[in-house]
Amino acid sequence: MRRIGSKVVHEGEIATVRVDEFRYPDGSTSEREVVGHPGAVAMVAHDERFLYLVRQPREAVGEEALLELPAGKLDVEGEGPLETAKRELAEETGKAAAEWHELKRIYTTPGFADERVWIYLATGLSDTEGEPDTGERIEVVAWPLDELDAAIEECEDAKSLVGLMLFRSIREAPPS
Amino acid sequence: MRRIGSKVVHEGEIATVRVDEFRYPDGSTSEREVVGHPGAVAMVAHDERFLYLVRQPREAVGEEALLELPAGKLDVEGEGPLETAKRELAEETGKAAAEWHELKRIYTTPGFADERVWIYLATGLSDTEGEPDTGERIEVVAWPLDELDAAIEECEDAKSLVGLMLFRSIREAPPS
Repeated sequence: MRRIGSKVVHEGEIATVRVDEFRYPDGSTSEREVVGHPGAVAMVAHDERFLYLVRQPREAVGEEALLELPAGKLDVEGEGPLETAKRELAEETGKAAAEWHELKRIYTTPGFADERVWIYLATGLSDTEGEPDTGERIEVVAWPLDELDAAIEECEDAKSLVGLMLFRSIREAPPS
Repeated sequence: MRRIGSKVVHEGEIATVRVDEFRYPDGSTSEREVVGHPGAVAMVAHDERFLYLVRQPREAVGEEALLELPAGKLDVEGEGPLETAKRELAEETGKAAAEWHELKRIYTTPGFADERVWIYLATGLSDTEGEPDTGERIEVVAWPLDELDAAIEECEDAKSLVGLMLFRSIREAPPS
């Protein structure tokens, strides 16, 4: 399968929509509409007692306060996923992490958008100063580690669920 | 938070992009660009030995064969999520299920799209006939149940990972 053409049909503030044309190994071709996205990071950040989560309004889905992992878009030119994760963790939670471990790379909606999310485990936390984005209404939640199951129960955000459940499986069976 | 206005800025084949205006409890307002999506279903379908997964090309993210749960869009007028799940399971895998259980409702990308996905557990499987969508290049994979961890390892699709990991936690600690 090979992309043989692409044209932008809508250039928006968040969503760029393009129509890509593909050729398959059997010689046939097809066109697909794709929402372009720069990619994102999400962080499972915890210390001995707490997991640091956020609650924020998600206008797109009509939710006042969705429980999620701290996260952010890869929207700074030349900044890689790990650097973005470090910056966003500081901005959203005021924490810096000494240890970083990539848990998984996922596609959030491979049927219609090209967003990829890098999910990290961030430990060895200390307080730091970030520069919160203005206009973001984010509340930090120190969630007790022993109540991880309740966070998974409440969470409805796909990338956050993947991160929280991978973290749960690591806690239950630590890698040797 | 209340939506006080909405206008469509791009009407495409898959993606409808709109700009919504919101008023917050403090009286301030903001505009958000939202990709509209009809919603979708995904099914964790298994019998005594196998989990029925699919591999399909995902042009949007440049993948030839992404491992996923069988799934489909809520694109038939008047059809609810459970009915869509039954129809899509038959179309994609040729299976009917006697028992259906909702595992979770998730938002795939609440930051920029309104897609919600209903994830079901489908058991009591029997062979049936579906009418496969033409143009979909879907390969059904009978994945050994004992190798569930390997499916989670390979899978990169968010909704499928959520379903597979919820299924793993049920298998490890069946509800009493």
